[in-house]
Amino acid sequence: MSIKFEITKECYKTSARVGKVHTPHGIIDTPAFMPVGTQGTVKAMTPEELKDIGIQIILSNTYHLYLRPGCHVISEAGGLHLFMHWDRPILTDSGGFQIFSLGNLRKLTDEGALFRSHIDGSEHFLTPELVIEIQNSLGSDIIMVLDECPPYPCEYEYLKKSLRRNNQWAKRCKEANKREEQALFGIVQGGVYRDLRKESLESLLEIGFPGYALGGLSVGEPKDLMYEVLEDTVPLMPADKPRYLMGVGTADCLLEGIKRGVDMFDCVFPTRIARNGTVMTQNGYLTVRNAQYARDYTPLETGCLCYTCQNYTRAYIRHLIKAKEILGLRLTTIHNLYFLNRLMLMSRQAIMEDRFDKFVESFLKQFEG
Amino acid sequence: MSIKFEITKECYKTSARVGKVHTPHGIIDTPAFMPVGTQGTVKAMTPEELKDIGIQIILSNTYHLYLRPGCHVISEAGGLHLFMHWDRPILTDSGGFQIFSLGNLRKLTDEGALFRSHIDGSEHFLTPELVIEIQNSLGSDIIMVLDECPPYPCEYEYLKKSLRRNNQWAKRCKEANKREEQALFGIVQGGVYRDLRKESLESLLEIGFPGYALGGLSVGEPKDLMYEVLEDTVPLMPADKPRYLMGVGTADCLLEGIKRGVDMFDCVFPTRIARNGTVMTQNGYLTVRNAQYARDYTPLETGCLCYTCQNYTRAYIRHLIKAKEILGLRLTTIHNLYFLNRLMLMSRQAIMEDRFDKFVESFLKQFEG
Repeated sequence: MSIKFEITKECYKTSARVGKVHTPHGIIDTPAFMPVGTQGTVKAMTPEELKDIGIQIILSNTYHLYLRPGCHVISEAGGLHLFMHWDRPILTDSGGFQIFSLGNLRKLTDEGALFRSHIDGSEHFLTPELVIEIQNSLGSDIIMVLDECPPYPCEYEYLKKSLRRNNQWAKRCKEANKREEQALFGIVQGGVYRDLRKESLESLLEIGFPGYALGGLSVGEPKDLMYEVLEDTVPLMPADKPRYLMGVGTADCLLEGIKRGVDMFDCVFPTRIARNGTVMTQNGYLTVRNAQYARDYTPLETGCLCYTCQNYTRAYIRHLIKAKEILGLRLTTIHNLYFLNRLMLMSRQAIMEDRFDKFVESFLKQFEG
Repeated sequence: MSIKFEITKECYKTSARVGKVHTPHGIIDTPAFMPVGTQGTVKAMTPEELKDIGIQIILSNTYHLYLRPGCHVISEAGGLHLFMHWDRPILTDSGGFQIFSLGNLRKLTDEGALFRSHIDGSEHFLTPELVIEIQNSLGSDIIMVLDECPPYPCEYEYLKKSLRRNNQWAKRCKEANKREEQALFGIVQGGVYRDLRKESLESLLEIGFPGYALGGLSVGEPKDLMYEVLEDTVPLMPADKPRYLMGVGTADCLLEGIKRGVDMFDCVFPTRIARNGTVMTQNGYLTVRNAQYARDYTPLETGCLCYTCQNYTRAYIRHLIKAKEILGLRLTTIHNLYFLNRLMLMSRQAIMEDRFDKFVESFLKQFEG
């Protein structure tokens, strides 16, 4: 098997657990948050900066890399790790989400999905086989099956049909995977319908994967509904395989997800809000570009040990962002990734010390003020 | 005196020299190239990255900082060094060049210059006294007098009148400087007219400054004409004071300037072309965004020891720039600054070893191919 998942500790009270995913490019301590490097770079960051923060795995997008620079450019470089100078684990998605969410889908059949490039309008036909071939050429440690990810809200009947196709695609993906060292994860869909989630999961379990993701959540539904789906579905997922909740990256959702037994998360949210001048602190969100910080000579977050907070003030960062200086985005991005990585560290520590439920309560109380 | 200039070695053949400028924030080895941090940040770079490259001094723009974030914001932070987290020397210009070149000048009198902000259109009146007050509040190590910097070509008669005003302004600047630890440099103007340059210099020498700059060059005149002006004027400048050629930053002009006795240079050119995807190499300019580098897995410059060339390929950097990724600009900026800093280092070494003339010849032969 490509990856090995080891559970170090289970929470005495919640479904949270601490574990280690062993991959060909090193260990991922879980629960883990994966920063997103859409185009083969976590926006504004070097790999060394990510490592300094403690990041162990990043996610990159198959859809974007396939269109630009193209897989041949990356495979000729020796794979995505060498191309982008990142020697730790990489997870790539299947590209399905982008096809369905960027609004360029032209035709969806059982065979695959026809879409138009958002870059040059060229037409491409993505099949489960092609998606795996692309990810094989990228050489990522964890790869994902192609699936349709319907938006919220979505009709029950539509979803039911979509699941059947997803199930076929998942099978074809598994058969197509030529590189055993790359761990292919299945994706549980089914919207907010408990029975559909169960059905989707059962089909995937029959095929058998080294890890299972939850897709189609955090796509517009109320948070409580997402938590309900997690409560219903996660307990049915194999305990000895990593569980990955796709597209979730706010502090509250991460903690609620961990509490319900999720091990891995990814989201563009923390890096995107950073570039818009908003940072996360233990006291909640802080929009440093606001005028009230023009003469505030304290760090973004008092007590934070990240490079940004150790060396710069809110006044300076606000100036940089107002003046559209690149360093501003760099500094806020560093802080937000450090913040979420520290949150994962604190969560693991709290689970190890049988105080995770109390940790979540006190953290969210302060965060949500 | 605020700074101390020490000449270590004079070229056996040309007017080049190696020296050290001692400032309150440390030593500047000359000949030196100063990267420009217009808005209190060298675009895309952290101070640590500049130090890793070996940069000893940066330039920042009084005009921009005065308008945004405003001097009070910076002085309350404890000065520009603390505000921007750079503890090595800083040179600030007077703001004059920006007022005259950004096209927002409204009225020029002997008293000062009325201009409109390029940010919000507000009107401001800059006088020699205000320019010094601003630079005093910034706390830069080297500060510059306010002067009019006419474009090329410029009428002799206009320049002659302009020089008289500049001379008055230089006097007023010197009188206004309240902080002795900040070294105020005079600026020699006079366009491409030998006698006007001489007249301008003589007036400044009468006032007396710890360093002298050459302004109004590299403003559109042919390079050979600039070299002629340098040949005529530099020998008249005091040998025991630093000589600073403003706004020059191409490899050939730097070497020709050093050869003629210039010690300091600044220019946005190397960082600006970097952000547009062009880098400097020993074999000349390379526009890495060009299609021919799409599958070129060699570094920007073979043999270069900069962070970029040690870790990334042309193919990856081209991809980043095409995809408008910030890391692309960061990597090209690092390389260009490293390249120019290395050129200064190699020049100093060559002067020390009495082979500077040969070094320039062979360097330019390869660079201009």
